[in-house]
Amino acid sequence: MQFTTGQGHEKVCTMKDLSAAVKSGGEVSFHGSVHKIRDMGDVAFVLVRIIDGVFQCVYTPQKANFNIKVLKEECCVKFSGIISEEPRAPGGFEVSLTDVCVLSSPHAVMPVSINKGKLKVNLDTELNYRPAALRAGVMRAKFPPPPPLVRGFRDYLHLQGFTEIHTPKLVAAAAEGGANVFKMDYFGKKAFLAQSPQFYKQTMVGVFERVFEVGPVFRAEKHSTARHLNEYTSLDFEMGYISGFEDLMEVETGFLKYTLELLKNEYKSEIELLNIDIPKIDKIPCVTFAEAKEMVCAEYDRPIKDPNDLEPEEEQLIGKLFLEKHKSDFVFITHFPSKKRPFYTMDDPQNTKVTLSFDLLFRGMEITTGGQRIHDYSQQVEKIKAKGLNPEDFESYLMIHKIGMPPHGGLGIGLERLCMRLLGDDNVRHSTLFPRDINRLEP
Amino acid sequence: MQFTTGQGHEKVCTMKDLSAAVKSGGEVSFHGSVHKIRDMGDVAFVLVRIIDGVFQCVYTPQKANFNIKVLKEECCVKFSGIISEEPRAPGGFEVSLTDVCVLSSPHAVMPVSINKGKLKVNLDTELNYRPAALRAGVMRAKFPPPPPLVRGFRDYLHLQGFTEIHTPKLVAAAAEGGANVFKMDYFGKKAFLAQSPQFYKQTMVGVFERVFEVGPVFRAEKHSTARHLNEYTSLDFEMGYISGFEDLMEVETGFLKYTLELLKNEYKSEIELLNIDIPKIDKIPCVTFAEAKEMVCAEYDRPIKDPNDLEPEEEQLIGKLFLEKHKSDFVFITHFPSKKRPFYTMDDPQNTKVTLSFDLLFRGMEITTGGQRIHDYSQQVEKIKAKGLNPEDFESYLMIHKIGMPPHGGLGIGLERLCMRLLGDDNVRHSTLFPRDINRLEP
Repeated sequence: MQFTTGQGHEKVCTMKDLSAAVKSGGEVSFHGSVHKIRDMGDVAFVLVRIIDGVFQCVYTPQKANFNIKVLKEECCVKFSGIISEEPRAPGGFEVSLTDVCVLSSPHAVMPVSINKGKLKVNLDTELNYRPAALRAGVMRAKFPPPPPLVRGFRDYLHLQGFTEIHTPKLVAAAAEGGANVFKMDYFGKKAFLAQSPQFYKQTMVGVFERVFEVGPVFRAEKHSTARHLNEYTSLDFEMGYISGFEDLMEVETGFLKYTLELLKNEYKSEIELLNIDIPKIDKIPCVTFAEAKEMVCAEYDRPIKDPNDLEPEEEQLIGKLFLEKHKSDFVFITHFPSKKRPFYTMDDPQNTKVTLSFDLLFRGMEITTGGQRIHDYSQQVEKIKAKGLNPEDFESYLMIHKIGMPPHGGLGIGLERLCMRLLGDDNVRHSTLFPRDINRLEP
Repeated sequence: MQFTTGQGHEKVCTMKDLSAAVKSGGEVSFHGSVHKIRDMGDVAFVLVRIIDGVFQCVYTPQKANFNIKVLKEECCVKFSGIISEEPRAPGGFEVSLTDVCVLSSPHAVMPVSINKGKLKVNLDTELNYRPAALRAGVMRAKFPPPPPLVRGFRDYLHLQGFTEIHTPKLVAAAAEGGANVFKMDYFGKKAFLAQSPQFYKQTMVGVFERVFEVGPVFRAEKHSTARHLNEYTSLDFEMGYISGFEDLMEVETGFLKYTLELLKNEYKSEIELLNIDIPKIDKIPCVTFAEAKEMVCAEYDRPIKDPNDLEPEEEQLIGKLFLEKHKSDFVFITHFPSKKRPFYTMDDPQNTKVTLSFDLLFRGMEITTGGQRIHDYSQQVEKIKAKGLNPEDFESYLMIHKIGMPPHGGLGIGLERLCMRLLGDDNVRHSTLFPRDINRLEP
């Protein structure tokens, strides 16, 4: 009888392990992909890609017990060699190769070149060949997901007493309204793909008071823009016993500060490689929707076309204005009109035409929508009716209002958009591992 | 202009905070739900449910500046009171109430009773009212997800050099075959809901060598059993440069050991409340599919009906047999027949009728399927054809085989099933926050 013990698998060899081996200057062995070969005749330089980096090996026929011709780029190999210091090489060391075991060989050449610095292909080509493109150094620094964003979200919220949840993506009722929801047949019944974990995270506030989820959300939006995806990763949280929606903005600010500190302190090489301009975030200005509209109108002589929502160009101008006047890359816009907010959003009791809700703009683009939710049953039923919807369609959701809920609210952050703004990408597809849009379902 | 600073939200008050306040014996204030009221006339006991526990408050008209009648069960309140030691009360303290602010009141009584110890309703009723049922203490200990399972998975794999990924759930090709896949219309094209992150995690092995994902998977299986769900949370990992599928079993064993240690050391109250019988896991026995079949046949005089797959009853008997003979709650079953494994599974070169794959049984139920994958392009194309499929349908997936892949493999663990076996539940729905089955899409 054989047994597993949990100890029997090989420990992975990292850049750090190799660095540590330099001092002893002895033999090392490691596995990886042949990233690049520069054959100069009497000597060849072989760049090897291992789990967390790329480094240089040197091949000479005198020292190696194999012929360089057995190697191709993207071969997977196990190498042995002698490690030594080499200040000019990446990582500060190089390995003089002695032996090789070729584990696998590619069947075709790479469709995009990944070993010549920046990728020099257009976005569509890059996305078609993303499984190949992702092997480039700059792409490995960027994905997945952008450096410490998910880690920061999870760690910060854990510190604040939040519980992580996983909620269903196949649902019977559409939280954000009917137009942009994917429908499907579910054993003869109609089902939707969740546009957000809205109903479930609210439900769990009744259980754990503070909850969060990192998961996929689905939007059947038909427009193809540089900032829309049909599936994306949402960082959601929901929080009970708030004294107002300002509490939510404070938690989000805390998360952003915490995460940008993580980035600064622990991801120096990624910052350099990706040329990340880290935003300053001592404090984030807050302005009402109405004020923001008027400021842009006055400052840039731009007429207000849509009184109920922000146009993308207005978001850009607000971003510009607050960067200039307050040196801030972020702006909270509060009190959005009731007309454009979902039925679960609480109206402002002082002016029911606006809601106790907000967006967060980051460098001129919305990356968050949030707000206080209605917790009273009668008030929620009334608002559903006022929106022209049927409370019977939301019976399951309304159970939590019936049995009692604390004042609460929450928000959702689009992970890919947050990443896009942080990295200065001009298209959200650049910041998405395998983007889904109206034309793209593969790879 | 107002600003957020990330400091402006209230710190949550936990059981630990209250315990710490006992020594000073002074005034405390906290928010929570009224979990239970026992009104004895001249004194009332009010159990309050806060973010991480339930504790006892005492109401007397002499000390309190409010009338007990303003309280109902499931009211959300802010209380003030004087805290003192009380060894007989849960948590070792109680609060003599002085003031209350009622934040919200329920509209209806609870449809299931959550404050009398165990829930005494049948499964279907419990699931219909799960948003209410989850507020019971025993349910809060159980969800979400079962104590430290996701945490253990993430932490252990991080320690082993794995990178966390988030991959698309809307896909163009079905990884596990066509019968039990949900189909939908995607802007006039056919799309599927991912049955597993299979293709994407393999793709990412070419980038990061070791990756994992915690996310939803979807199976359109039509049978309604105690162990099947149509959406569940899968703990997936995939690992490059393996020397055999045994490496994968070693990593899984390591994860289970690590996580059960976490459970034992940090979740004592949950273990007690849920009456968890922690499995012993020094080493896990490994047996081939063929041997296991024959052992059950011989030991329990049971004819082999299906030579290509394990029947649920056989899994139970294997579990029983290995518990008796090896005192093990876990058994790895290896070398499953090629006929029943997906097209990406590598056949055993010594006997191509079986595969380099395995299941893990936990207390007589399959909780994991895994194995080594084919990494060679020609071999993969051949196997797709041999399975009666068309390689053109998998062109996007085959890109990774074309450009080169290391020997690799991985596995998926059904989170809810793992939890079900750990907690001794007799139906996986008991261990699932909001289960989806052929009849259930709500709540």
